[in-house]
Amino acid sequence: MDASPVNNPRWGLWLLGARGSVATTMTVGWAAMVANLAGPEGMVTQLSAFDGVGLPGLSDLVIGGCDIGQVPLVKRAEQLETAGVVPRGIAKRVADDLATVDARLTGGVSAQDVAAHPAEALARLQADLAAFRSDHDLDHVVVVNVASTEPPIEPHDSHSDVDVLLAALDADQPVLSPAPLMAVAALTSGAAFVDFTPSSATVIPAIQQLAERHGLPLAGRDGKTGETLLKTALAPMFADRALKVRSWSGMNLLGGGDGQTLADPVHARSKLESKAAPLQAILGYQPDGPVRIDHVADLGDWKTAWDLITFEGFLGTRMQLQFTWQGCDSALAAPLVLDLARLVALAMAAGEAGPLPALAYFFKDPVGSSQHRLAEQFTDLIAWTRTTAATTGTTAP
Amino acid sequence: MDASPVNNPRWGLWLLGARGSVATTMTVGWAAMVANLAGPEGMVTQLSAFDGVGLPGLSDLVIGGCDIGQVPLVKRAEQLETAGVVPRGIAKRVADDLATVDARLTGGVSAQDVAAHPAEALARLQADLAAFRSDHDLDHVVVVNVASTEPPIEPHDSHSDVDVLLAALDADQPVLSPAPLMAVAALTSGAAFVDFTPSSATVIPAIQQLAERHGLPLAGRDGKTGETLLKTALAPMFADRALKVRSWSGMNLLGGGDGQTLADPVHARSKLESKAAPLQAILGYQPDGPVRIDHVADLGDWKTAWDLITFEGFLGTRMQLQFTWQGCDSALAAPLVLDLARLVALAMAAGEAGPLPALAYFFKDPVGSSQHRLAEQFTDLIAWTRTTAATTGTTAP
Amino acid sequence: MDASPVNNPRWGLWLLGARGSVATTMTVGWAAMVANLAGPEGMVTQLSAFDGVGLPGLSDLVIGGCDIGQVPLVKRAEQLETAGVVPRGIAKRVADDLATVDARLTGGVSAQDVAAHPAEALARLQADLAAFRSDHDLDHVVVVNVASTEPPIEPHDSHSDVDVLLAALDADQPVLSPAPLMAVAALTSGAAFVDFTPSSATVIPAIQQLAERHGLPLAGRDGKTGETLLKTALAPMFADRALKVRSWSGMNLLGGGDGQTLADPVHARSKLESKAAPLQAILGYQPDGPVRIDHVADLGDWKTAWDLITFEGFLGTRMQLQFTWQGCDSALAAPLVLDLARLVALAMAAGEAGPLPALAYFFKDPVGSSQHRLAEQFTDLIAWTRTTAATTGTTAP
Amino acid sequence: MDASPVNNPRWGLWLLGARGSVATTMTVGWAAMVANLAGPEGMVTQLSAFDGVGLPGLSDLVIGGCDIGQVPLVKRAEQLETAGVVPRGIAKRVADDLATVDARLTGGVSAQDVAAHPAEALARLQADLAAFRSDHDLDHVVVVNVASTEPPIEPHDSHSDVDVLLAALDADQPVLSPAPLMAVAALTSGAAFVDFTPSSATVIPAIQQLAERHGLPLAGRDGKTGETLLKTALAPMFADRALKVRSWSGMNLLGGGDGQTLADPVHARSKLESKAAPLQAILGYQPDGPVRIDHVADLGDWKTAWDLITFEGFLGTRMQLQFTWQGCDSALAAPLVLDLARLVALAMAAGEAGPLPALAYFFKDPVGSSQHRLAEQFTDLIAWTRTTAATTGTTAP
Ligand SMILES: NC(=O)c1ccc[n+]([C@@H]2O[C@H](COP(=O)([O-])OP(=O)(O)OC[C@H]3O[C@@H](n4cnc5c(N)ncnc54)[C@H](O)[C@@H]3O)[C@@H](O)[C@H]2O)c1
Ligand SMILES: NC(=O)c1ccc[n+]([C@@H]2O[C@H](COP(=O)([O-])OP(=O)(O)OC[C@H]3O[C@@H](n4cnc5c(N)ncnc54)[C@H](O)[C@@H]3O)[C@@H](O)[C@H]2O)c1
Ligand SMILES: NC(=O)c1ccc[n+]([C@@H]2O[C@H](COP(=O)([O-])OP(=O)(O)OC[C@H]3O[C@@H](n4cnc5c(N)ncnc54)[C@H](O)[C@@H]3O)[C@@H](O)[C@H]2O)c1
Ligand SMILES: NC(=O)c1ccc[n+]([C@@H]2O[C@H](COP(=O)([O-])OP(=O)(O)OC[C@H]3O[C@@H](n4cnc5c(N)ncnc54)[C@H](O)[C@@H]3O)[C@@H](O)[C@H]2O)c1
Ligand code: NA
Ligand code: NA
Repeated sequence: MDASPVNNPRWGLWLLGARGSVATTMTVGWAAMVANLAGPEGMVTQLSAFDGVGLPGLSDLVIGGCDIGQVPLVKRAEQLETAGVVPRGIAKRVADDLATVDARLTGGVSAQDVAAHPAEALARLQADLAAFRSDHDLDHVVVVNVASTEPPIEPHDSHSDVDVLLAALDADQPVLSPAPLMAVAALTSGAAFVDFTPSSATVIPAIQQLAERHGLPLAGRDGKTGETLLKTALAPMFADRALKVRSWSGMNLLGGGDGQTLADPVHARSKLESKAAPLQAILGYQPDGPVRIDHVADLGDWKTAWDLITFEGFLGTRMQLQFTWQGCDSALAAPLVLDLARLVALAMAAGEAGPLPALAYFFKDPVGSSQHRLAEQFTDLIAWTRTTAATTGTTAP
Repeated sequence: MDASPVNNPRWGLWLLGARGSVATTMTVGWAAMVANLAGPEGMVTQLSAFDGVGLPGLSDLVIGGCDIGQVPLVKRAEQLETAGVVPRGIAKRVADDLATVDARLTGGVSAQDVAAHPAEALARLQADLAAFRSDHDLDHVVVVNVASTEPPIEPHDSHSDVDVLLAALDADQPVLSPAPLMAVAALTSGAAFVDFTPSSATVIPAIQQLAERHGLPLAGRDGKTGETLLKTALAPMFADRALKVRSWSGMNLLGGGDGQTLADPVHARSKLESKAAPLQAILGYQPDGPVRIDHVADLGDWKTAWDLITFEGFLGTRMQLQFTWQGCDSALAAPLVLDLARLVALAMAAGEAGPLPALAYFFKDPVGSSQHRLAEQFTDLIAWTRTTAATTGTTAP
Repeated sequence: MDASPVNNPRWGLWLLGARGSVATTMTVGWAAMVANLAGPEGMVTQLSAFDGVGLPGLSDLVIGGCDIGQVPLVKRAEQLETAGVVPRGIAKRVADDLATVDARLTGGVSAQDVAAHPAEALARLQADLAAFRSDHDLDHVVVVNVASTEPPIEPHDSHSDVDVLLAALDADQPVLSPAPLMAVAALTSGAAFVDFTPSSATVIPAIQQLAERHGLPLAGRDGKTGETLLKTALAPMFADRALKVRSWSGMNLLGGGDGQTLADPVHARSKLESKAAPLQAILGYQPDGPVRIDHVADLGDWKTAWDLITFEGFLGTRMQLQFTWQGCDSALAAPLVLDLARLVALAMAAGEAGPLPALAYFFKDPVGSSQHRLAEQFTDLIAWTRTTAATTGTTAP
Repeated sequence: MDASPVNNPRWGLWLLGARGSVATTMTVGWAAMVANLAGPEGMVTQLSAFDGVGLPGLSDLVIGGCDIGQVPLVKRAEQLETAGVVPRGIAKRVADDLATVDARLTGGVSAQDVAAHPAEALARLQADLAAFRSDHDLDHVVVVNVASTEPPIEPHDSHSDVDVLLAALDADQPVLSPAPLMAVAALTSGAAFVDFTPSSATVIPAIQQLAERHGLPLAGRDGKTGETLLKTALAPMFADRALKVRSWSGMNLLGGGDGQTLADPVHARSKLESKAAPLQAILGYQPDGPVRIDHVADLGDWKTAWDLITFEGFLGTRMQLQFTWQGCDSALAAPLVLDLARLVALAMAAGEAGPLPALAYFFKDPVGSSQHRLAEQFTDLIAWTRTTAATTGTTAP
């Protein structure tokens, strides 16, 4: 009973990329909700379906993290105001909370640091987590990666075995990029790890083994907030109506920090990979058609995705569907990070270890699961939450 | 065991509106599939999920029906070729089958007949069904309404009680329009009734009572093939991501026979009614925004629907989705009529009586069910099919 | 030379509907431009093509007007800030100018006033104009109607003859609605009249005669800012490429004050009328397809128009174009009101009387012109401006 | 007078790429129009604006050409029937004409031939043209390039001087690709040259000099039939309403032969180059935003282009336009090839030499002109046609 997060006075969320758009929007929104300045829109775990399952409370949450950038959170929040991502005036109203979180943020480790001195970098990340935990007397810490998309990592033998991996890091071999290194730091520090980005952190077998060895949960990868969300809502309709998808083409235009990173084809490769799986999984075949990601500064955070789907029905008749999605990426992503932190904290309390397939609902490329159908993912999530809550005894009577 | 449709040499499908676009496309497609000239695209019950549940075979099916029009089926099929609904040359290749079905079609009863002489009209419909059954020695007959959309029926006291209704008809009172009268004819003749149109036939309480009294299944209403199909695939995404839909506007443009009928606002009212329910049911509230249906002859069967959805996420941020659906209405509808006939025949074999909630998957406004979420409807359908097949002993070992 | 507007210290613009969205946006923008707080975006007469033609200066402009509403301009400006129509903080920065204009605004006359006491209403409007002119010692006054769309006016014999009309008004007969009455007031007071709305004011023959009798220019009707603007840009492409337009359907969704007015089908009729002319004029035939206007509060000023165009090319091949326009109606309209005021002031200085066909560029249904092609309208406008400027001697050397 | 094409019994059109989609559609359509099996849709020079200007008649036209492919024209026509580009049954009805043209087609020269033996390749092309002219006793021959898009040509010193170029070819230096070599063959054989593709043929200075030296007209390059057509119709609207375009992104999806060629990024480069000019020219600046061309086999000839335009109006307010164009590329292009042949024949009769700026209306990247506004291009075309017709004395009285 004592292990239940609901009875813990304090639990912690450590963000990799804590000054990014997603992280800042999340922190602003968290502060606003706790202060009753904002409603629950966009937060899945605030739906009535989650009532009474004893998820850890938002007001008990301690937020910290690291970022290689230096811009103060309140400044980032003001930028997001200007961009229309968060409402006018909110930065000022939650400035105290932002300053409090800001004071806890560390500089993290850059890709260069990690390449040059991996062992030292790992030690630094572990030290940050240890300090965060003890400073705030936290029972459960969940680390969530919301840093810039990394290029796909160079495959390395050490990735398939946890002991080989730890030895390689010990020997200062540059076998990991920052995100997977953060995962190692988290798991070796007793924290769960969630990858909201398309990095390799949660799909490296050695890291999955590490999670199991330490009895800690893993969740990932790549938050599902736009075109892929739509795909996993729509593709089942085609499959279940026996309509054959002949082509599915997509153009994604976006500005913002993420848009800038993805304008680089090397970084975009990770994203394109994580975007490919769902159609194959749902339809049973990969339809023809490109997926493009392009940077258009003017769109800012309003990711605009246009998809054209051509399909075939009875007697071979050809038909089409096209959609244009204009979603504010950070506003869609931010509440999911809070949702994931709460759900993973619940999993920790229940002693779940390794990849959490039940969280597939949140990800483009869910580790531990091949379920991509959105509705089924939601059903699975609810079922898992209730079972797990029962396990931990957190379910309200 | 003998009651199982799979062991029945012959089962029958009687179409109200047998010369319409949907009916003709269905008949052409059925003949083409039986002759191995066409694949299973568009037919739900041909999905592997239905393997081994012992649905009645397409080659055992006897098709008949009535229509107030006179155009021979092969002529209608050629018109549908020109319109691009069915493939070039197909009418010729299945001409014999079309002629066979054509020879079974009767003139039915017009709205005027039904208004002037309801008792006689009912008797005629019953006689048609009796002849169809005995001519072809059929065990199960399913009647499906695919006639022109009727205007909403004038409410009448007799609609709430089966005995009052039958008495009124006996007394030659004009209390029903053709579609519900066909339902009465079917149920009093031992046939199941399915309404693929938005008519009132399946929602009139007295008719539901009649189905139960005779131990016969009912299913309806209004086949879900276009904008509403999309709505029920997409609305759960908004609901389950806690995104508040602020408005949902839709414009439906269509030509063809159905387009012409719906150009008349009185007829369109039925359709608009059946289109309204899903969003309220899925979202829990009715978002602002019009739904329009307009006739554009040039589009022919290619119903073009444009929907604009505005919604609100985290911290009240506003976003949009719009889609354009260009579906060939008859090609989408026709295979579902075959699906429904097979599934209802299964229900008959299992002795199910009254509205079949498990068939909600096929309808805009499902009788006996308030489930509008597409994915859940599909899950329910599969589950029901398996259970019912087990009941009838039709499940393959 | 003295008659040239450029040498006039002061010229006046009197707005009917001075507290509406268009009027307020215009007044805010005018103040912002004069104060160098805003650039020339959206103002046609600020293009370099108009350099040196001696249009009256924005800083010499005196703005006044009437409205039946009471909300202070600065309040309206703040509402427009919230709606995103004008930039944050601007209301405050131009508050002094808004207050100055506000002090000049009168209550005007309501539709009820005009129906009950037309002669008195006319006298009141005339008195307002006289006071505006003398208070500010104005040489040229241009009246622009930006009030709520009126329903189409009941035809009346008096509309075809200026003397009969004036006599009817004298005899207190309710033969005009507010907009045409304002036109009479303007023209009988030496002011030019521009109708930015779809009212009948500028198409009533008697009012056109009145303009000619008084040697005053008229321009109208219904500002071209959205779907129709696109139509007149795109339809010439189809015509000049010999592509036959088979259907052109349009759905217009809008919120705001104008949206609310047009939600009433009686008011919408005027708008739908003025929207019909362009395609017929450009294509030489009226393609099939509906035009719908619907109110969606959530869209606010962001009028969203979706148009579907089906067309036919070589050998009868069928093709399609569809577009979605998301324009901020007031931001598109407001600068055109300033443009029109300047151009009509120039026409006054040049002594032009009656409808000004050269201003067709600005209107859905241009009075005195059957030219609807956007590019030709622009060419005509430039040519007329240069000729007229030469006449008045205002052209810069 | 004798020189006027209208009095010539025979004039010739030689197609480079005569078995391609555009060429075949053109030949089918030409035969169908001459046989009164098809109307004038899609042909600009059949508009009434061209009445009485004495363009050479379609029935006087002799079509020939070359292609490196071997598929018989009637077979290609049947493929285009299946693809829906030309109407069902047409290939059969014009089979005789297709066979006649087929018999005139030669094998041309491949890129490999041209690279290995340029002098010989040139001689072969010249011999083909000489035979075509003398076999059919043709006064005017127009060569039109409708072959596959070539990659951009390697710049070479010889390109800037006609004498150096001819000497290089003489010396068997591989300084040209097939399209420019065809231009040299045409111009040295007394034929005019039109480039409907984005090849360098008409922009190489030495080839322009050659045209002038021989007193022959040149026109090009890259037929304007889809996204760019729309751009040049729409961009002037933004420019002339003083709306600042902040981004213009485009995604072009296409199948067919051209789609396959352009799927290769090297070939696509030429196309992307010719697509870039219009916005810069019309707006005066290059807006941000990608232009993508992707191959989607399923779309066949129905090029689908989606463009998103973000723009800024009064007071900086942000707005958007998006469109989806679904045009049948070959059906749009084919009639323009006939138009160009007729207009260039007129220019030849009038003795015009070098690039023809008045034909800018037809091209994405018009040689000899910087006019990209579609409406102005059309006005210029009409004016030039009338003037030129007057020169040649071909204008009907
Ligand atoms: N927004 C969405 O809808 C969405 C959906 C799925 C995935 N994601 C992913 O979330 C991530 C964040 O997106 P964003 O829009 O906030 O991007 P952003 O560019 O605004 O923020 C990324 C932050 O990461 C920081 N960072 C980079 N390298 C770091 C390192 N080694 N250590 C610590 N911090 C580092 C950057 O300084 C920056 O502050 C991206 O990887 C994106 O692909 C976002
Ligand atoms: N096609 C779809 O996707 C779809 C989806 C949902 C519902 N529906 C409904 O299916 C019905 C048929 O659509 P369609 O496109 O085939 O229309 P259609 O106009 O082509 O065919 C209707 C047929 O019904 C016949 N009919 C009319 N009154 C009759 C009567 N009293 N008795 C017998 N026959 C009668 C007509 O003569 C005609 O042949 C419509 O009600 C439509 O709303 C169709
Ligand atoms: N915004 C555009 O792009 C656009 C384009 C073309 C035409 N228009 C027309 O411009 C007009 C104004 O549009 P809006 O969006 O500002 O509307 P709005 O509803 O915001 O403003 C209309 C104003 O007119 C006032 N009014 C109504 N009756 C009056 C009367 N008898 N005397 C004086 N004032 C009166 C109202 O009180 C209100 O303040 C409408 O008729 C609209 O159709 C607008
Ligand atoms: N269709 C349009 O709307 C459009 C618009 C602008 C430009 N174009 C251009 O027109 C050209 C033709 O398009 P298409 O769709 O007909 O393509 P296609 O692939 O169907 O036809 C091209 C033809 O050129 C032939 N060819 C290739 N190399 C040759 C050579 N060296 N000599 C002779 N023939 C050769 C090929 O064998 C083929 O038959 C392309 O370059 C395309 O970019 C087309
Ligand atoms: Na997975
Ligand atoms: Na040029």
